[in-house]
Amino acid sequence: MVDELKKAAAQAAVDLVRSNTVVGLGSGSTVAYFLEELGARIRDGHLDVVGVPTSYHTRFMARDLGIPIRDPMDVDSVDLTVDGADEVDTHGNLIKGGGGAHVLEKLVASMAEQFVIVVDESKLVNTLGENFWVPVEVITPALAFVMKSLRGLRANPAIRSGSGKLGQVVSDLGNTIIDVDFGPIEDVPSLDRKLNDIPGIVGHGLFVCAQDKVIIARPPLDNPSIETREYQRISRGDG
Amino acid sequence: MVDELKKAAAQAAVDLVRSNTVVGLGSGSTVAYFLEELGARIRDGHLDVVGVPTSYHTRFMARDLGIPIRDPMDVDSVDLTVDGADEVDTHGNLIKGGGGAHVLEKLVASMAEQFVIVVDESKLVNTLGENFWVPVEVITPALAFVMKSLRGLRANPAIRSGSGKLGQVVSDLGNTIIDVDFGPIEDVPSLDRKLNDIPGIVGHGLFVCAQDKVIIARPPLDNPSIETREYQRISRGDG
Repeated sequence: MVDELKKAAAQAAVDLVRSNTVVGLGSGSTVAYFLEELGARIRDGHLDVVGVPTSYHTRFMARDLGIPIRDPMDVDSVDLTVDGADEVDTHGNLIKGGGGAHVLEKLVASMAEQFVIVVDESKLVNTLGENFWVPVEVITPALAFVMKSLRGLRANPAIRSGSGKLGQVVSDLGNTIIDVDFGPIEDVPSLDRKLNDIPGIVGHGLFVCAQDKVIIARPPLDNPSIETREYQRISRGDG
Repeated sequence: MVDELKKAAAQAAVDLVRSNTVVGLGSGSTVAYFLEELGARIRDGHLDVVGVPTSYHTRFMARDLGIPIRDPMDVDSVDLTVDGADEVDTHGNLIKGGGGAHVLEKLVASMAEQFVIVVDESKLVNTLGENFWVPVEVITPALAFVMKSLRGLRANPAIRSGSGKLGQVVSDLGNTIIDVDFGPIEDVPSLDRKLNDIPGIVGHGLFVCAQDKVIIARPPLDNPSIETREYQRISRGDG
């Protein structure tokens, strides 16, 4: 069970949270452990923070756990954002957004003075694209054009759907999500730029070494070891 | 009255339309004359085309004029797109989107084999930003962060509102529009890139020499002269 590892990485991240700060709350299964521990420390009076959620799912979970919430729109900076990742390559580039929240995740990451990624070791890859596709969020009128443009980049795009009769998946913002198989991504900054420049794309799940730290949990499961990698953050998206 | 000039430029553009093609329909007051003439030629049987609109306003106008419509989502290429501009600089860069339709305008322009701009001579400037601000469309949760990021670029952003009690202006896509005073914009490609890279921006009204032609109408009003400038189109946004 990697859940023990996710939990260990999340716990290490909660230790970074200081009282009287604004904390960006990522999305996903590893972040869920972070939220649980953060909520526990708030409820027992050891921490006093405000959380800025990156998805409806995180927002509701935070509320249930007693974490005070502020909307991203009411904030232009955050002290620390903690989030998970689907893949981390050897340069610290990420694929995020398996859960479809990557546009708000990138926003709240960009707002943050410090951005920390929590993963178990299964997320480490040599080259992005080994196990995960890159999610791309698209304004719906641009769907055909963006699909064609992605094929022009020699990628294989698929519109994300629920299984069976569940219908098309849309983001919290109401946009369509395309999952894109680029194969192994050797030049992440170049692809990031190309995707940013395609009209109709609202955002995508490639993060070009955007974090200050990656906290990695490794076996043994009954006493996981924690490795913290430090990075020179390349871009914060605010000029 | 510049209306005579707008009309003359629009008429010259209709002459470029061939039967059995898909025509991207821009938005704005000059395009309105283009739609009127296009509709007249369709109704009298001289042209047989399908139009792809860039705004609800154009969509309704085209329907009223008898121009068959296809949604942008159902098309991944267009033969010819005709649109107006708020400013055209000496390099052929544009500011568009005074009407708030620039995201779909850029999409349908990018789809087009040929992209033609129609203006009266009052739209010609030495440097973009002389008379118009740059509209930036933003996902609403990113509003505070994008305002801060724009100020970091030494710009002066203002959220677009209707006058008096009319409330905030949103785009056809439901996003917020920020009008940004950058002052004179010397390096348009550099600013285009910076805006493309800011998380939360869906699109903006700077077009980096995206057209094949600019059709310019000049006085005298009773017999306007037409100048056509040809360009090497720099980017079509499809990789």
